[in-house]
Amino acid sequence: MSKTRLEAFSDGVLAVAITLLVLDLHVDPGKGGSLLAQLGAAWPSFVAYVVSFLVIGVIWVNHHSIFRFAVTIDRLLLFWNLMLLMFVTTIPFTTSTLAGALADGDASDVRVAAVLYGGATTGFAVAFTFVWGRITLDLLRSGAMGAPERKRSMLRFSAGTVLYPILTLVGVLYAPAMLAGFALVSVYYLFNQTGASEA
Amino acid sequence: MSKTRLEAFSDGVLAVAITLLVLDLHVDPGKGGSLLAQLGAAWPSFVAYVVSFLVIGVIWVNHHSIFRFAVTIDRLLLFWNLMLLMFVTTIPFTTSTLAGALADGDASDVRVAAVLYGGATTGFAVAFTFVWGRITLDLLRSGAMGAPERKRSMLRFSAGTVLYPILTLVGVLYAPAMLAGFALVSVYYLFNQTGASEA
Amino acid sequence: MSKTRLEAFSDGVLAVAITLLVLDLHVDPGKGGSLLAQLGAAWPSFVAYVVSFLVIGVIWVNHHSIFRFAVTIDRLLLFWNLMLLMFVTTIPFTTSTLAGALADGDASDVRVAAVLYGGATTGFAVAFTFVWGRITLDLLRSGAMGAPERKRSMLRFSAGTVLYPILTLVGVLYAPAMLAGFALVSVYYLFNQTGASEA
Amino acid sequence: MSKTRLEAFSDGVLAVAITLLVLDLHVDPGKGGSLLAQLGAAWPSFVAYVVSFLVIGVIWVNHHSIFRFAVTIDRLLLFWNLMLLMFVTTIPFTTSTLAGALADGDASDVRVAAVLYGGATTGFAVAFTFVWGRITLDLLRSGAMGAPERKRSMLRFSAGTVLYPILTLVGVLYAPAMLAGFALVSVYYLFNQTGASEA
Repeated sequence: MSKTRLEAFSDGVLAVAITLLVLDLHVDPGKGGSLLAQLGAAWPSFVAYVVSFLVIGVIWVNHHSIFRFAVTIDRLLLFWNLMLLMFVTTIPFTTSTLAGALADGDASDVRVAAVLYGGATTGFAVAFTFVWGRITLDLLRSGAMGAPERKRSMLRFSAGTVLYPILTLVGVLYAPAMLAGFALVSVYYLFNQTGASEA
Repeated sequence: MSKTRLEAFSDGVLAVAITLLVLDLHVDPGKGGSLLAQLGAAWPSFVAYVVSFLVIGVIWVNHHSIFRFAVTIDRLLLFWNLMLLMFVTTIPFTTSTLAGALADGDASDVRVAAVLYGGATTGFAVAFTFVWGRITLDLLRSGAMGAPERKRSMLRFSAGTVLYPILTLVGVLYAPAMLAGFALVSVYYLFNQTGASEA
Repeated sequence: MSKTRLEAFSDGVLAVAITLLVLDLHVDPGKGGSLLAQLGAAWPSFVAYVVSFLVIGVIWVNHHSIFRFAVTIDRLLLFWNLMLLMFVTTIPFTTSTLAGALADGDASDVRVAAVLYGGATTGFAVAFTFVWGRITLDLLRSGAMGAPERKRSMLRFSAGTVLYPILTLVGVLYAPAMLAGFALVSVYYLFNQTGASEA
Repeated sequence: MSKTRLEAFSDGVLAVAITLLVLDLHVDPGKGGSLLAQLGAAWPSFVAYVVSFLVIGVIWVNHHSIFRFAVTIDRLLLFWNLMLLMFVTTIPFTTSTLAGALADGDASDVRVAAVLYGGATTGFAVAFTFVWGRITLDLLRSGAMGAPERKRSMLRFSAGTVLYPILTLVGVLYAPAMLAGFALVSVYYLFNQTGASEA
């Protein structure tokens, strides 16, 4: 399996998933109130759109960063990459569910939707950790990376597997704070080098 | 026709098809019961999403594996590749139909939906066999592959044309078992080299 | 503008358009009759899906064939290529409209839908002719193609601008015959070299 | 971050966004009047489809033009490119909202929808300006572009940040004139070299 084609396929899936987010934005002019009122009521969709766009955008940046280091693409790496894409692809769904619950306002539904949203992000964070683990194992074996260096890099890179469940808990208490948290974390990751690219 | 552009187009179609699976995941917060109850009732959609994601993911892996061996891209190969993509692209539809039938629970509808789901997989398995047959014919003619070797490879690679109809029959009896079967077969194929890549 | 990126963008649009055809396939298990009856009533969707898949597939093959000859990508070529993609992208819409009209059975609606379907194909045939005209003008100027040779090639390549309106007229009389015609023409073009690649 | 993969991802997002425009075209044969009447009533959708197709098409052309000059892809450039794509991806939504408001005919809704449509274009024009500013800063530092030359290029390239708000104001008065304006500006930009490529 060539790295080029794995990257092309992953880029394709990420590009489609990030663009499908727009399907959650919709109002119905001429039905139920003025367009302005409808747009106002749909504010959670707009906020969730921006946050999820940043989240998937940062996944794409990180995906690229870590696959630059990949030497061999074996079946295990393929599997974890597929798991990663599987969770990322659910984001348009978890985004629209959360936006719908926030617009509807039922507190219990909002909590469930926040867990769903946070769960998907935790899922891809775990998959990302396995992907990076597999890539750095190769680097370790070839001597391109030392064992302590790999441990530090793994710890930094797997931060999402701790951070995202915490944000999920925040979301159970107050979902908008979770969304703000994901936006902040995304912008942070976008502007700061990941452990991966500093390895 | 260059192999690069055929692969790029196929990757594009596969990436879009695998991502469109998410459109089948949807609930309607604020309508008909709590979100948790709705998510629970939609379990077949989630199971079918995972299975179909694995199925298309493995198609992508195998597509890449066998086109590495392709030397000339003639019109017949183009035709069978197009047939292959045509069946794969129906998977979001057969997936949502099966999930809908399982959620609705009508036994007769579930049987019909299982045949539809299994039929599409059988369709792409047949197209895949023709694609591999065309590629190996070139290898045979150029002497890169012997006749007995090709026969063995064809037998192994066309396993899906037997296996998928059997899984379809299983689905007529009990659809969840068919889904479990497809998941197992996909994971198996993901981790084991195909006849193609061992040729 | 590099040819590579024009081809990549065109391949992307064509791959998304061909895959979006699947969105027209949908039934609703548990609503209005058995699934089998619903699938039966939706036969025009399935037929139209196959025909349109072949139509877009052949566009992709021909797009590749003729851009192999392109030397310079100027603004006029970009414009006609964009027009071409604009008409191709409407095919999922014209396909679903025709399938819907056929399923509904109103004779007058079917005629309108056939004109819509045929009109879109005529539109891309015209754009294709301009694209090929622009590419061959370069070949003519550079001496890579003679004037009589170009005339013959243009005549052959623009066959669709005559053939598709004829098929549209056939569709006004009997829409299924138009669909059969498009399927036959597509398979013919898939297996026979276009004027473009023989130039 | 390699320029190739940034371009591939951007091309993917633009290709999906431009193709999703077709989802706004839909009629329902057999429901509420003849198909011809429905197509007639849906004229704003068709006009808006053509205009938005041109708008996104020109974005793609310009995106390519300016990234040819990019030397280093740093985090700031990634961020502004992501902002650019985020606004472009909303176009299928703003397009369908405007078309819906025009079809419905409520004057106040049309005004709101025109502001929404124009706002999204202004958003990507601003992001485009930052992208080009970042790219030319590199050129300035490396001496490939002089300070006065950069100033002129920035002024020309940021024309959209002035032009699009003006068109938005036009849209508040009469939305069809705004659409005509966007079509004209797009065709103008398609046929005339941007400041970017002349730099």
